Amino acid sequence: MLEKKLLELRKLMKENQLDAYLVPNSDPHNSEYVPQQWARREWISDFTGSMGFVMVTQKKAYLFADSRYFLQAEEELDFGLYELIKRAGTNEAYRELIQREFSTSSCRLGVDSKTYTIAFASALSEKLAESGHELVLMENNLVDEAAKNIKQPLSITNNPAFTWPLKNAGKSVAQKLEDVRKTISEKDCDHIVISALDEIAWMFNVRGSDIDYNPLVISYGIVSQDKAYWFVDPSKTSDTKLTERLNTQGVEIHAYGDFQHHLKSLKGKVWLDDYSASAWVRDSLDASSTTNHLELSPVSMMKACKNKVEVEGIIESHRKDAVALTKFFHWLENNWQKGVSEVDASDQLFEFRKEDDQCLGASFCSISGFASNGAIVHYRPTRPNDATIDDSSIYLLDSGGQYWGGTTDVTRCAHLGTPSTEQKKHYTLVLKGHLALGDLTFPEGVYGNQIDAFARSALWKHGLEYGHGTGHGVGCFLCVHEGPQGIAPNSKRATFHENMILSNEPGYYLDGAYGIRIENLVYVSKDPVSTDTREFFGFKNLTLFPYENKLIDWSLIDLHEKALIQKYYDQIWKDVSPRLDDERKTWLKSKLEIGS
Amino acid sequence: MLEKKLLELRKLMKENQLDAYLVPNSDPHNSEYVPQQWARREWISDFTGSMGFVMVTQKKAYLFADSRYFLQAEEELDFGLYELIKRAGTNEAYRELIQREFSTSSCRLGVDSKTYTIAFASALSEKLAESGHELVLMENNLVDEAAKNIKQPLSITNNPAFTWPLKNAGKSVAQKLEDVRKTISEKDCDHIVISALDEIAWMFNVRGSDIDYNPLVISYGIVSQDKAYWFVDPSKTSDTKLTERLNTQGVEIHAYGDFQHHLKSLKGKVWLDDYSASAWVRDSLDASSTTNHLELSPVSMMKACKNKVEVEGIIESHRKDAVALTKFFHWLENNWQKGVSEVDASDQLFEFRKEDDQCLGASFCSISGFASNGAIVHYRPTRPNDATIDDSSIYLLDSGGQYWGGTTDVTRCAHLGTPSTEQKKHYTLVLKGHLALGDLTFPEGVYGNQIDAFARSALWKHGLEYGHGTGHGVGCFLCVHEGPQGIAPNSKRATFHENMILSNEPGYYLDGAYGIRIENLVYVSKDPVSTDTREFFGFKNLTLFPYENKLIDWSLIDLHEKALIQKYYDQIWKDVSPRLDDERKTWLKSKLEIGS
Repeated sequence: MLEKKLLELRKLMKENQLDAYLVPNSDPHNSEYVPQQWARREWISDFTGSMGFVMVTQKKAYLFADSRYFLQAEEELDFGLYELIKRAGTNEAYRELIQREFSTSSCRLGVDSKTYTIAFASALSEKLAESGHELVLMENNLVDEAAKNIKQPLSITNNPAFTWPLKNAGKSVAQKLEDVRKTISEKDCDHIVISALDEIAWMFNVRGSDIDYNPLVISYGIVSQDKAYWFVDPSKTSDTKLTERLNTQGVEIHAYGDFQHHLKSLKGKVWLDDYSASAWVRDSLDASSTTNHLELSPVSMMKACKNKVEVEGIIESHRKDAVALTKFFHWLENNWQKGVSEVDASDQLFEFRKEDDQCLGASFCSISGFASNGAIVHYRPTRPNDATIDDSSIYLLDSGGQYWGGTTDVTRCAHLGTPSTEQKKHYTLVLKGHLALGDLTFPEGVYGNQIDAFARSALWKHGLEYGHGTGHGVGCFLCVHEGPQGIAPNSKRATFHENMILSNEPGYYLDGAYGIRIENLVYVSKDPVSTDTREFFGFKNLTLFPYENKLIDWSLIDLHEKALIQKYYDQIWKDVSPRLDDERKTWLKSKLEIGS
Repeated sequence: MLEKKLLELRKLMKENQLDAYLVPNSDPHNSEYVPQQWARREWISDFTGSMGFVMVTQKKAYLFADSRYFLQAEEELDFGLYELIKRAGTNEAYRELIQREFSTSSCRLGVDSKTYTIAFASALSEKLAESGHELVLMENNLVDEAAKNIKQPLSITNNPAFTWPLKNAGKSVAQKLEDVRKTISEKDCDHIVISALDEIAWMFNVRGSDIDYNPLVISYGIVSQDKAYWFVDPSKTSDTKLTERLNTQGVEIHAYGDFQHHLKSLKGKVWLDDYSASAWVRDSLDASSTTNHLELSPVSMMKACKNKVEVEGIIESHRKDAVALTKFFHWLENNWQKGVSEVDASDQLFEFRKEDDQCLGASFCSISGFASNGAIVHYRPTRPNDATIDDSSIYLLDSGGQYWGGTTDVTRCAHLGTPSTEQKKHYTLVLKGHLALGDLTFPEGVYGNQIDAFARSALWKHGLEYGHGTGHGVGCFLCVHEGPQGIAPNSKRATFHENMILSNEPGYYLDGAYGIRIENLVYVSKDPVSTDTREFFGFKNLTLFPYENKLIDWSLIDLHEKALIQKYYDQIWKDVSPRLDDERKTWLKSKLEIGS
């Protein structure tokens, strides 16, 4: 079957005079999770990993994947047809492969311009040109055409959109439109094109279920100075209240397929976020009557800085989540003896979350890893091969819920037996980093790359390190990963602003033994030391669940850190205990007693 | 006179069809201190500040200067001829002015391509093109031509070069050439052009005195795979031993004026550091027979990572410097009562430095600021207006020496009376930042922007901040400011490597009251926690002089910080006391007693 698919694709490549064809695992909206209808990388390779990019030439097909996916790729790939390139699919990696395969001739590399952002397409185009090769940006997708020709179509998900009510959104569409128009006019822009699905959902106060874990609606948006447009499949908008509400607030609704036609008719200066809008969006504009303004979308920033209503919703969601976490870890402590596997555990937590009717689902696929599985940063357990949790090592659980009000994401480690001295040392060093970052006060204008190391320095002192960023942005009943804010060695897209939500999640991973990660969500809050001339911020915890006291080596915790833990535990008790039954309340109390 | 100069310049602008002309305060080598022969900005404006850029149109002349220079500009500028633009001279500032003055027509802005780096010229060219204006990169300098025409030439300094002996350099020119060739061949380069004077001095083991404070020789260098070339005025190289040494090691010496001719004859791939090489260098290459490789110069990195001999020379220089500092602060404590001005004090420290015959001069113009003068970050006292130092406030002294062996740079504050509670609080917060940064352990791959905040977080906690970077690179008997390493919110040119020298200098400045800065030089040293798979580094102090204990509020110092101070003071006593006479030894001992 795969052979037939590749054969058809190569035929189409020939017809289009292409020497190579790139199939990125991305969609027209640069989504983190690619909906089934656009899962072309999977269709052409059988590889199902969440990252991994395919390049096909007449002779060979390649999958680019980083170390997280080597095992999976080795299981899923047909090595008669494919070669695994053991590195991430970056523009530089593509260039090197093209140069290797086409060292004596020039190569025309095709890609669907809808699936490549402006920034990446420009960079790849330049890189290839340096070595005499050419990037061909195409309006049509050859994998789609091949699928059609051989009658093996990709499946389509098409779910209704629904209103995100004002009492949760905190700000009307009309008000948001006014804010956006004001901001883009400061840069003399007449229009902004919004491609990112979470920005569109925020902009129009809508939600949907077209994408796993993220309550989004596949659509495009354009905000012009006089009008606003939402391009969405009509089958999604049968809810007339929703359409009336949007119409009343000045939003015209058009079919998803009409978007390009509208793009072509725009005149004036158009704001495009070159890291989210596709090259196809740029190329669809009429160059003779428009100019581009390429900059981070202001909608992304507005969405990231939550309003009061959103913050309240998020705080309440975390109280609900804390109840589920308490129920779960109490249950685990009393039931692991009966045999609980990694999937059993994450399923059980999901059940506890769903006991609250405001929880609509998980915000991502849980990472539930016992012992050495916990050391695999992006581990996803699957039955029947998932490990059984017992008292011999550390259990790591990273999970989150989508609540009507906010999105949660939390990681806790548990040890059901007696931890080793080394485990306690490692856990405590991670905790020290987590506390140091959470305790920071910093002025306006600071980027995530400037504070990331506070979460690492305790580990560094002992020659230890972790290989991921420390914090990502989180949406409000939106994506669990959102930009532009972040805390990582290279986070420099946006400075911190009041009411941004971030994770604080340092970790440590001992290969083949265990993984440790401590993750709270926090929100950026104005610090009282702020002056008339300069604002200062700090982080406030949203997550409300105790650390694993058993894993803390108190001799490594100084007085200041101990006070921070005590203050956090007092808050947990105050906010969570009133929501618990007596048994769980007693259990939680025991978990809030700190050592010395 | 200035009017006549501007008149002549405008005449030349007309002849060259220029609407505006840019006079940056820079030279063909992008030097920090511009030699007199290239002090065109000063010649055309009478403004003598170390930063500040001039743009001249037919109607108006503008000086761009940041807040440090407002006062000086207001004193020195002729406001009949000039307008002061109160912002730093950046490409964006130029674009905005051009757009303002030429809103209805297109402007041709000329600049000497020798005085603008490749990176800045490309960026300015693009910025201007966006608004329909043009940057004209010129081989000739219109200020020079104007000076010639009206017979008001700029003065010329031309001093001999001398050998930097192998016993100080630690590495022969032949070996350095081999290293450079190997590195550039990894990027398939046939040649590297070296424009930066400190890189040239390092490369050829030469020093000179063409530039204030920096022992440099005005010259260019080219290292090709088969040959190496040093382009220098013949009058500087009358020392035949020097020329023979270089010839023996494979370096051809040519006249400075022959450089362009040689550039034009190069063939193959040429490495240019686009942040140090001028646009003129790029444009002099024959585009039909060369390609450019634009990247940070590897010579800059090699120079920054000192070898063992250099580190030993630098350590020894700091011991000598500590003796001078001890003599000075002992003297100040016993003599301020007789009336010591800011210039008296810095002169006296220089005298003490010169008592060691290995000290060849100052490494920069001292910042000697009493009370409110200390709050002016780039303050330079001048007689007779310099303040008299007394016991009523804080005295800040930032100074350094050029020793045969190494370059020093140190800032200490003293209070000769009784400090206020607030002064102690501020000093102690600065000290906490200085200690936190100095105590860090961090892995390979870390940039300065990731650790800068450790020097700030204690101040941030109290709503305080300072407006400068925390650390700059320092050369070995070279420039007191060198790249690529640095510690600042935006330092991302190079990661830290063993034996780089940096300053650690947080501060706090209370406008109109006092300034605090604590500066040690440190070197990057491998930390014992390093593993087989990952190296870790820390900083080791080079500077050997106690903090001002009187200004420390010990209640804000925790046990760990106290131990760090004690360890540092023990090192000072061990290294410095054997070099002091009894009186000063007793005095130093008293300064090393720490409070509780």
